[in-house]
Amino acid sequence: MAGGSGTRFWPLSRRHRPKQFLPIGTDSPLIVETVERLAPLVPTHRIRIVAGEHHVESIRTHLPALDARSVLVEPCARNTAPCIGLAAIHVAHKDPNAVMAVLPSDHHIGDGVGFRRLLQAASERALQGEIVTLGITPTRPETGYGYIKLASDEIPLSTGMGVSVETVDRFVEKPDLETAKSYISSGRYLWNSGMFFFTARNILTAFERHLPELSQILDRIAAAIGTPGYDAVLSAAFADADSISLDYGIMEPITQGDDPTPVRVIAADIGWNDVGHWAALADFAETDDSGNVIAGDALVIDGRENIVHSEEGLVALVGISDTVVVRTGDAVLVCRRDDAQDVRKIVDALRDAQREDLL
Amino acid sequence: MAGGSGTRFWPLSRRHRPKQFLPIGTDSPLIVETVERLAPLVPTHRIRIVAGEHHVESIRTHLPALDARSVLVEPCARNTAPCIGLAAIHVAHKDPNAVMAVLPSDHHIGDGVGFRRLLQAASERALQGEIVTLGITPTRPETGYGYIKLASDEIPLSTGMGVSVETVDRFVEKPDLETAKSYISSGRYLWNSGMFFFTARNILTAFERHLPELSQILDRIAAAIGTPGYDAVLSAAFADADSISLDYGIMEPITQGDDPTPVRVIAADIGWNDVGHWAALADFAETDDSGNVIAGDALVIDGRENIVHSEEGLVALVGISDTVVVRTGDAVLVCRRDDAQDVRKIVDALRDAQREDLL
Repeated sequence: MAGGSGTRFWPLSRRHRPKQFLPIGTDSPLIVETVERLAPLVPTHRIRIVAGEHHVESIRTHLPALDARSVLVEPCARNTAPCIGLAAIHVAHKDPNAVMAVLPSDHHIGDGVGFRRLLQAASERALQGEIVTLGITPTRPETGYGYIKLASDEIPLSTGMGVSVETVDRFVEKPDLETAKSYISSGRYLWNSGMFFFTARNILTAFERHLPELSQILDRIAAAIGTPGYDAVLSAAFADADSISLDYGIMEPITQGDDPTPVRVIAADIGWNDVGHWAALADFAETDDSGNVIAGDALVIDGRENIVHSEEGLVALVGISDTVVVRTGDAVLVCRRDDAQDVRKIVDALRDAQREDLL
Repeated sequence: MAGGSGTRFWPLSRRHRPKQFLPIGTDSPLIVETVERLAPLVPTHRIRIVAGEHHVESIRTHLPALDARSVLVEPCARNTAPCIGLAAIHVAHKDPNAVMAVLPSDHHIGDGVGFRRLLQAASERALQGEIVTLGITPTRPETGYGYIKLASDEIPLSTGMGVSVETVDRFVEKPDLETAKSYISSGRYLWNSGMFFFTARNILTAFERHLPELSQILDRIAAAIGTPGYDAVLSAAFADADSISLDYGIMEPITQGDDPTPVRVIAADIGWNDVGHWAALADFAETDDSGNVIAGDALVIDGRENIVHSEEGLVALVGISDTVVVRTGDAVLVCRRDDAQDVRKIVDALRDAQREDLL
């Protein structure tokens, strides 16, 4: 899934250069890292990327080994359920029993080996007809993520090379801080990573049951695959889809109604980070002796715990700590590390001022 | 005097683009403001600028109305005494009784009308054979300036349009904080502005008495003025001069020995600022409603009392206060306003790292 258009990495991220196409705390763009992470397990020709038309060129540039037909174009952004549905009809067109591993293209995973081990285990369960997700072992009462409640009384202990597959009680949306704290102390909740595993047939059945309108739209598109009219049908039909996430549209109802599909979660402790804003880099990127995360040409004198990213030119700090400084060819951002979420205030102000060149 | 090579306005100021050629808190470069400030009183053809060879081109660009022969080239930097001596022999060559107003090219003066009034008064006294300086009414116990002690018991009161000319007791060098405080509370000290007034003949006589070696060097150069050998003589002789300031080499001894020359000071309250570092802009530049000094394309959200200067591109701050942020084509500076002096640490580090492109 490469449809994201995040603004939280402004000025590096822009409307036509969202986060997944940027190297953020990494050597390669996040989407390249995501594909390379799969390489030992998944042949390139089995990878599909769903993205907007205006990102196709970037994908080809960053991933030249990928066949052009591997990119499935979303005519418009409609959140994850339509995106995954579109991928599912294409996979089903080749093989309805094929297992799909649905992965965001803009997350960081520190432990690639551990990730592939879980991916393999999840895929095996998916092949048996289950819907599987990875749940991240939480480290703090984060209010920015959805949670997955386990049916069992406690989070499975880590067992070395073993993989523990648990039954999901339910998916819950982003909690407030008090609720998040109670989730953590209960020991029965994992973070929802947005990574899912199922066969194409199984997820399309779930769409039929829980999102019947979307299911019909997908059927219209599926009927046009391989025909000259595909693009026209896709454009017309996809726009009709409601914007809805897989979590809300499928995972929540599937675990709460009388749907017989087993839904499982595998607890994952794999150095996962959703790279939500500049300050997140401190959680996984390398630091210098003073705790500064530095990318590009930068000089920090008498300062600690800064995040400095220069795409072009020198960035020099003296006597500055706990601050984010980012320089691109046409802009500079300076904010407190604790206020990294407020970058969106700048993007909003630029939008209000119609500074299209900077959006 | 345009020989300065200040590094305290890095990254805007560079080896080949020192402060005087930059618009700092002003619309035009400081040297242009300095010349324009004189315009109502001094015809352009009477202005001489002393500067290094590598700054001649900048001077011609910024001051196209100036005759090329108005620039007196210093073959090397030797502080203010040799610089003023060089100017004096050229002025004396035309008219030894001409009054010289010696002015730094990189200071800000808010009250141009008041300045010209004092300049006129000082010049009249200089024509009578006195050596005159402007002493700035101090507003704080500044340790970065030299001071001028008055012979009288108290600083003359401001008297509307009147100009009070006082006798100097002595010139003193930069004090420590305790001493500076005692100067301020005594009411008998003014800041040394580095602005001097005297006839060419008078200052050359002072050189003869107090800096005889330099005086002989100047005589050798003076003898070559107007001859084909001038450049060669200048290069050879000027390099022999010791590096010494007019304050230390002439003004201190002239007021303390048996030199009969009267030395006067005029108390000046003219919005003077020596623009010593980025934080100084807050003292005279325009601010927005939140006390931010902004030049160029900048956006400050939820922040106060910043100094933001963008030569190129947008500089966006969110949640940042009391900070200096400067962007040029090839560099960004971020420092605390209180640490603006520490910019030199960056320049030192760049020099150590042989980053010649950024010096």
